Amino acid sequence: MEFLKNDLLLRALRKEKVERPPVWMMRQAGRYLPDYIKLREKYDFFTRVQTPELATEITLQPVDQVGVDAAIIFSDILVIPQALGLQVLLEENKGPVLPKVIKTQKDIEALQVEGAADRLNYVMQALSLTKKELAGRVPLIGFAGAPWTILCYMVEGKGSKTWDKAKQFAYTETPLAHQLLQKITDATISYLKAQVKAGADTVQVFDSWAGSLSPADFKTFAQPYLIQIADALKDDAPVILFPKGSWYALKDLSQSSAAGLGVDWCISPQMARELTNNTITLQGNFDPAKLLAPIPEIKKAVKEMIDEFGPQNYIANLGHGITPNVPVDHAKAFVEAVKEYQV
Amino acid sequence: MEFLKNDLLLRALRKEKVERPPVWMMRQAGRYLPDYIKLREKYDFFTRVQTPELATEITLQPVDQVGVDAAIIFSDILVIPQALGLQVLLEENKGPVLPKVIKTQKDIEALQVEGAADRLNYVMQALSLTKKELAGRVPLIGFAGAPWTILCYMVEGKGSKTWDKAKQFAYTETPLAHQLLQKITDATISYLKAQVKAGADTVQVFDSWAGSLSPADFKTFAQPYLIQIADALKDDAPVILFPKGSWYALKDLSQSSAAGLGVDWCISPQMARELTNNTITLQGNFDPAKLLAPIPEIKKAVKEMIDEFGPQNYIANLGHGITPNVPVDHAKAFVEAVKEYQV
Repeated sequence: MEFLKNDLLLRALRKEKVERPPVWMMRQAGRYLPDYIKLREKYDFFTRVQTPELATEITLQPVDQVGVDAAIIFSDILVIPQALGLQVLLEENKGPVLPKVIKTQKDIEALQVEGAADRLNYVMQALSLTKKELAGRVPLIGFAGAPWTILCYMVEGKGSKTWDKAKQFAYTETPLAHQLLQKITDATISYLKAQVKAGADTVQVFDSWAGSLSPADFKTFAQPYLIQIADALKDDAPVILFPKGSWYALKDLSQSSAAGLGVDWCISPQMARELTNNTITLQGNFDPAKLLAPIPEIKKAVKEMIDEFGPQNYIANLGHGITPNVPVDHAKAFVEAVKEYQV
Repeated sequence: MEFLKNDLLLRALRKEKVERPPVWMMRQAGRYLPDYIKLREKYDFFTRVQTPELATEITLQPVDQVGVDAAIIFSDILVIPQALGLQVLLEENKGPVLPKVIKTQKDIEALQVEGAADRLNYVMQALSLTKKELAGRVPLIGFAGAPWTILCYMVEGKGSKTWDKAKQFAYTETPLAHQLLQKITDATISYLKAQVKAGADTVQVFDSWAGSLSPADFKTFAQPYLIQIADALKDDAPVILFPKGSWYALKDLSQSSAAGLGVDWCISPQMARELTNNTITLQGNFDPAKLLAPIPEIKKAVKEMIDEFGPQNYIANLGHGITPNVPVDHAKAFVEAVKEYQV
């Protein structure tokens, strides 16, 4: 195992004492960076994702240019539906489209869990290459979408404000929904284990649409699968679960095998600490829109955020992905404000 | 004052004992009803809103056809920006567009608060006519958008997933944002008072995008204006505040002059009762997508919801507007399930 020059993220996940909190940003390798835009103009989305050299270059950009304390591999949560045999179309500046959606038992049976992780070998190659290029500068984060969120896309076929069709499927064809969720879970566990083998120091599971579910439905359709994943990975690497919008699940998830929980900005740090009884590392929760505020405002708000979470057992991050309209200087100010924090 | 044959809603808002909870549905006069679709094919949106006879006919449809315990006047929250002098375009099946958005002090100064309620006289005519047609069958609800939500549209110019521009305005031009929020608040108070005069038995304030704000920002940009409205109306009619997504504000708002608080499905009834210390009437919180489940499932879930909220100090409703794809029979099943509830 390579020596890490900056292991703040991993120490925070192990609940070890840190000099200051680690900081990274969801979607940090993305459209607010001019060098990313340049690559986007040359290569389409899945070329960037599937070419290890390009994915590595993009992954390293925010480490080099913004100074974050971790790299997160450039990829997409929809590589899992792809690896299971579904077509995924992704046009720039539009949401993803899955032309063939899941409706029946037969559709679910046709999904190929076996070999799914192997079909994602390009991700493992990108992780290995990135690991090499990082040369121990910062830890490397792998990731996957959570089963509920992946089901949403597989059933709905595209983004949605309400996820009506996905929910109708879950509420009406409940046994089928569980069958699908289990298949996604199995593929995701193999995929995340392969990511760790290839060099990921920790993995994050993004449940981007968890917050569309009521607390009771989250417990039925999301939570058991998140817990399965955290349990299955616990001897491989620390797992961060990010059930966006599902503040109500923080208590239960704080008692899972996860090492960290992501929170969005719609819960106060204090309340998040209370709900998790201060037993788990929390990550978040800066409103990405606040990166559009003047730099002194950003710095002030970051300091307040860290004060409220407390600097230990904490990873500074946004509460959702950085948006394309954020000036690079503002992203840097966010990172600097964390680095300047006096514990 | 006219004698109401069914005053369940008003009794629930006054925290008086009821035989069973009242029930209505947000957007109950809407696109899931075939008779509404017929009118939509003949008249454009603002013709329907601005013609008292049409607005009345649409308002009465769910009372006659679905059996709800209250009528809510057919209108739109964006009539306030219109009355303040901004153009609002509304194409069917698309979101609203405001071609000229608010950016500067001058833009705000140009808004005409004086006379805004008068320019909405067609709403008052629709309320009077509806009141007459109802002949005391059920109470009539008036409504308006909350200042933060109206600011979102006035600054952004259209719907948004993240309300970036609105938030950037609020975070960067904070004094201007407050000036704008105050103007909207003043116009809204006059408008709601006029609605009560014209026949509204209660009024609801929809803060549809409150949930885009952090708890701290809600306290700055949303809460003070909701409280002003509740205070200003408290001697006129019971006020229901519905800060969608802002479960974190329930405690503070339960101590306001409001008579009722709306909650969405992303909080358990039990938690909503705890946060409000059981001191205020709660309204909600059925997941609208659950109306797509089979009827026996709907009925079971409604019973569980009432059990959890408790049948007193409670108004059965959805947690957001009913969606166009709900079969009318399912909407009826929702209403029937409440009516069948044995206290």
